[in-house]
Amino acid sequence: MAATSRREQVVADAPRGTEMKELPLGDVYRLIEPGPVVLLTTRSRQGRANVMTMSWHTMAKIAPPTIACIVSSDDLSFFALRQTKECVIAVPPVGLADKVVKVGNRSGRDTDKFATAWLTPLRGERASAPLVAECFANLECRVVDTRLVNKYNLFVLEVLKAWIDSAQPKPKTIHHVGNGAFVVDGEVIHFESHIP
Amino acid sequence: MAATSRREQVVADAPRGTEMKELPLGDVYRLIEPGPVVLLTTRSRQGRANVMTMSWHTMAKIAPPTIACIVSSDDLSFFALRQTKECVIAVPPVGLADKVVKVGNRSGRDTDKFATAWLTPLRGERASAPLVAECFANLECRVVDTRLVNKYNLFVLEVLKAWIDSAQPKPKTIHHVGNGAFVVDGEVIHFESHIP
Repeated sequence: MAATSRREQVVADAPRGTEMKELPLGDVYRLIEPGPVVLLTTRSRQGRANVMTMSWHTMAKIAPPTIACIVSSDDLSFFALRQTKECVIAVPPVGLADKVVKVGNRSGRDTDKFATAWLTPLRGERASAPLVAECFANLECRVVDTRLVNKYNLFVLEVLKAWIDSAQPKPKTIHHVGNGAFVVDGEVIHFESHIP
Repeated sequence: MAATSRREQVVADAPRGTEMKELPLGDVYRLIEPGPVVLLTTRSRQGRANVMTMSWHTMAKIAPPTIACIVSSDDLSFFALRQTKECVIAVPPVGLADKVVKVGNRSGRDTDKFATAWLTPLRGERASAPLVAECFANLECRVVDTRLVNKYNLFVLEVLKAWIDSAQPKPKTIHHVGNGAFVVDGEVIHFESHIP
């Protein structure tokens, strides 16, 4: 059940300072390929939104943008994702790191993490799961392959619509190295390359 | 056809300044989860070693350490990997970035990339594919699931043996953001977390 709101409603719902704009689908890999910690949101059939922290994901195709990710069956999100086949992947800037950790430390079973972590859910266009207003990118996804779910909790997602917050230019991301330690993006270096 | 050399031979083969030591398999996720650019090596049944640059990979299980990765069927490595079901994932430090790009820009079809990129192949213990001496970590892997190969070029790998170069303490890694631009690891920040 996808939300039917138009883009204008999304922008209208956005908190002050947020300027969500459509990101061309061909640019999605630039966000995911570097391996940042992301948030994954779902909305259960009963209408309950949830959010989890995720570090196990990879691009699988550039076009259409396709992502493989692991969502543990220990996580409440697993069941909403398997049932609704919809989610949003949101990319948080380093300034959101403390909230990202709070989200990771709690379960949606006993906590409304959008309220507790002070994250703002926004209605998307293509997925029922909410966007996260504080994240600089949001990818609305649907599950397109479940063959590796039973054995590896691996879902294949197609990105249907992508949003970028132009109010957050060049945000730094974080990469989890284990036990609550994160590497923050440092300098950018450039080489001649034939590779997209 | 796994190489049968003992660990001592690996160390004996290592270039001066390299001190490859076994890394506990439970620590492998700390290397892969942050999303660094890696090298993937293979050895064809005809005995030819090849190396490619890879950014599309994710942890899939902590124990046994299991990695999902995408190897394009445009790459020569795809065929050796599918045929032999063995590979090595090597993690390069930022100082190797120019060689990583050289490897990414050329095809094993017309170039011996170990020679051209001045990378040193080392014999491993569990996989026929070579370790890369200049990389600070090397993971010997076998393919354990090919169900998503035809549709997504997605291989599931189990790490059988892991090596870490203790002569390279706390190396910084690189993350590809597209078109030859890489983000280098910056500062490390710490939070209280229940998550491994």
